[in-house]
Amino acid sequence: MKILVTGGAGFLGQRLVRRLLTLEQLTDGQGRPQAIDQVVVTDRAPLPDFGDPRVQLVIGDLADGALLDRLLDAGTQSVFHLAAVVSSQAEADFDLGMRVNLDGLRLLLNRCRKLKHCPKVLFTSSVAVYGGKLPAVVQDTTALNPQSSYGAQKAIGELLVNDYSRKGFIDGRVLRLPTISVRPGKPNKAASSFASGIIREPLKGEPAVCPVSPELRLWLLSPQGAVEGLVRGHELPAGAFQDSRTVNLPGLSVTVGEMVAALGRVAGPEPVARITFSPDPAIERIVQSWPGAWDTARAAAMGFSGDPDFEAVIRSFMEHDLPKA
Amino acid sequence: MKILVTGGAGFLGQRLVRRLLTLEQLTDGQGRPQAIDQVVVTDRAPLPDFGDPRVQLVIGDLADGALLDRLLDAGTQSVFHLAAVVSSQAEADFDLGMRVNLDGLRLLLNRCRKLKHCPKVLFTSSVAVYGGKLPAVVQDTTALNPQSSYGAQKAIGELLVNDYSRKGFIDGRVLRLPTISVRPGKPNKAASSFASGIIREPLKGEPAVCPVSPELRLWLLSPQGAVEGLVRGHELPAGAFQDSRTVNLPGLSVTVGEMVAALGRVAGPEPVARITFSPDPAIERIVQSWPGAWDTARAAAMGFSGDPDFEAVIRSFMEHDLPKA
Repeated sequence: MKILVTGGAGFLGQRLVRRLLTLEQLTDGQGRPQAIDQVVVTDRAPLPDFGDPRVQLVIGDLADGALLDRLLDAGTQSVFHLAAVVSSQAEADFDLGMRVNLDGLRLLLNRCRKLKHCPKVLFTSSVAVYGGKLPAVVQDTTALNPQSSYGAQKAIGELLVNDYSRKGFIDGRVLRLPTISVRPGKPNKAASSFASGIIREPLKGEPAVCPVSPELRLWLLSPQGAVEGLVRGHELPAGAFQDSRTVNLPGLSVTVGEMVAALGRVAGPEPVARITFSPDPAIERIVQSWPGAWDTARAAAMGFSGDPDFEAVIRSFMEHDLPKA
Repeated sequence: MKILVTGGAGFLGQRLVRRLLTLEQLTDGQGRPQAIDQVVVTDRAPLPDFGDPRVQLVIGDLADGALLDRLLDAGTQSVFHLAAVVSSQAEADFDLGMRVNLDGLRLLLNRCRKLKHCPKVLFTSSVAVYGGKLPAVVQDTTALNPQSSYGAQKAIGELLVNDYSRKGFIDGRVLRLPTISVRPGKPNKAASSFASGIIREPLKGEPAVCPVSPELRLWLLSPQGAVEGLVRGHELPAGAFQDSRTVNLPGLSVTVGEMVAALGRVAGPEPVARITFSPDPAIERIVQSWPGAWDTARAAAMGFSGDPDFEAVIRSFMEHDLPKA
C-alpha cells in the first residue's frame, strides 16, 4: 500500500514517517493487512533524507491543486494530514491560516474523494478547538468554542472530515492532540511553543523564557504518544468511532509549575535555574482558553493510551531527542 | 443606513424585508439609531415587488464575487444573510451545498471585512448542527455533531462568523433557528418541509403526507417568531453575546402527533383527516438527528422570546398566511 504524509518536515511528521517505516504492515480500508510499498512525504519546507527507498519526497504547497495530483493516485490507501500553519502564525496572518488550514484541507479531501476508493484520512486537531467557559474536565460532549483562528480552522476541519466520512467520500479519523511536549528542535510560532521550550532549552544548557504563569494548567502528550496515537487511529476499524470520527487523545494534566518541578527532579536545579518567567499577554490569552484536562474514557475504550507521567516524558526526551554533548 | 438581505425570495427573507420596512429605525454598529434609507434584497430566484422605493432588488448568485460588489458598499451597515441551499437539497447535491452554504458565506464575509467598518452580519443557523446522542434538552454547551451536510455547513458558518467577529472584521450574530412552522407557500426541499405541510396543506383543503412518525419530537418556531428574533438579534449590543456570537432561539417542543391534535382543536376533524402517514427513511434519518428541545435560558436573558403554544401558531397562520377561499 501507498501512504501520503503531509507536513512531513515537521517534528511529528518526521517521527511518524520513521515509525511507519518500522511497521511490518498496516491495515487498508478493507481491513486487510498490507505491507507499506511507498511513503510519499510532502512539505513546503525542506525534507530530511529518511534513508529508505520506499520514501518519495515532494516539496510544494498543498494549496496548489497541481501538487495534489503528484501526491495521490489510485494506489494511495491512507493519508496522514499533518500540514498546518500553527496557532500564533495563523492568528498573526489570518489569510495564510485560512489558505493552508482550510483551503488546503478541502483540496486534499476533494482529491481523496475523486479517488473513489474511500482512502483513510488521519487529521490532527487540537486543544485549541475549545475555549470560553469550560468544565474542569472537558467531555466529548462539550461544545467547541475556539478563541483563535487556528482553533476555528481545526474545528472546521473536524466538521469537514466527519461529513466527508459520513458521505462515504473518505474514511476519516480526527485525533484531537493535547499540546505536544517535549517537542525536539527549535522554538516555533505555535502559542504552545514554550511548553517544550521550558524543558528543552534548559536541558541543552540554554536559557528559556516562559510567557505564562506557573499556575497555568496544560494537557500534554509526548511526541511518541502522538505518533502511537496516529498509528492506533489508523488501525482501528471505522466502526470503532461510532457517533463521531473525532476523538480526544489521552494526555497528562499538569501545571507549568509542576512541569518545572519534574524537570528539577529528573535533571537537578541547574536546568531549572535557566528558566525565567516573563508573561506575554498575547500568548497567555490563547493558551488560557485551552482545556487543562479532558475525559479520556472514550479514547481508552478505543485502545488509545497516553504517557505515565511527565518525569517519564522528560527522561524519554533526554534519552532519544536531546543532542548529545 | 443601508441594509442587505440575502435569500430575499424565501418566505423568511420576504417577511423580514417587510418587517424591516415598518421599522422607524435600527441601531447601527456604533449603537446609534438610524433610519433605514435603503434595503438591498438579493436572491437567485425571482424577487417580489415590495412596493417601497427604499428597496433595491438584485437577482444573482452569491458565489459570484462580482455580484457582491453590487450588493455592498461603504454605506452598508447591516447584512441579514439568509440565502442557503436547504437540508435535503444539500444532502442530495453535496457540491451545490458547499458552494452556496460555505463558499458563498466566505465570499460575503470577506467582502464585509473589506468594508473596514465592521458591519453587523446576522447569520441563521439551524437545529441541524446537532446530532448523535443528545440530552433530552440540548444546552448551549452541548457539542455540535451534524448528521447532514447542511448541518455541517451551518456549523462551519457559525465558526466562521464567530472568528470573523473575534478578529473585528465583522460584528456577527448567529441565530440558531428551530424548525420553522407554519411556513406559508409550497413544499420545499428542506427535510423539515413536512413540519409546515401537515398543517398548511390540510387547511387549504389539500392532502398532506407526513414522512415521519407521530412520536417524533420537533422544536418549532413560527415565521413571525423568527423575524422578531432576527430584529432582536440585530438590535442587541455585541457585548450581550459574551462568550459566543451563537444563540439558540426559543422554540416549542411538540411531537408531530401533538401538532396534529392542535390542528384538530383549532380547525376541526376535516383537515386532520387529510393527513396520511407514510414514513420516508431518508427524511426520518435526518430529522430524528435534530434536538426536540434546547435550553432557552441564555436566549431569554438576552430578550429573545418564542411562541406561546402551537395552537396560537396555527391561528396566526390561518389569520395572516392562509390564502382566503
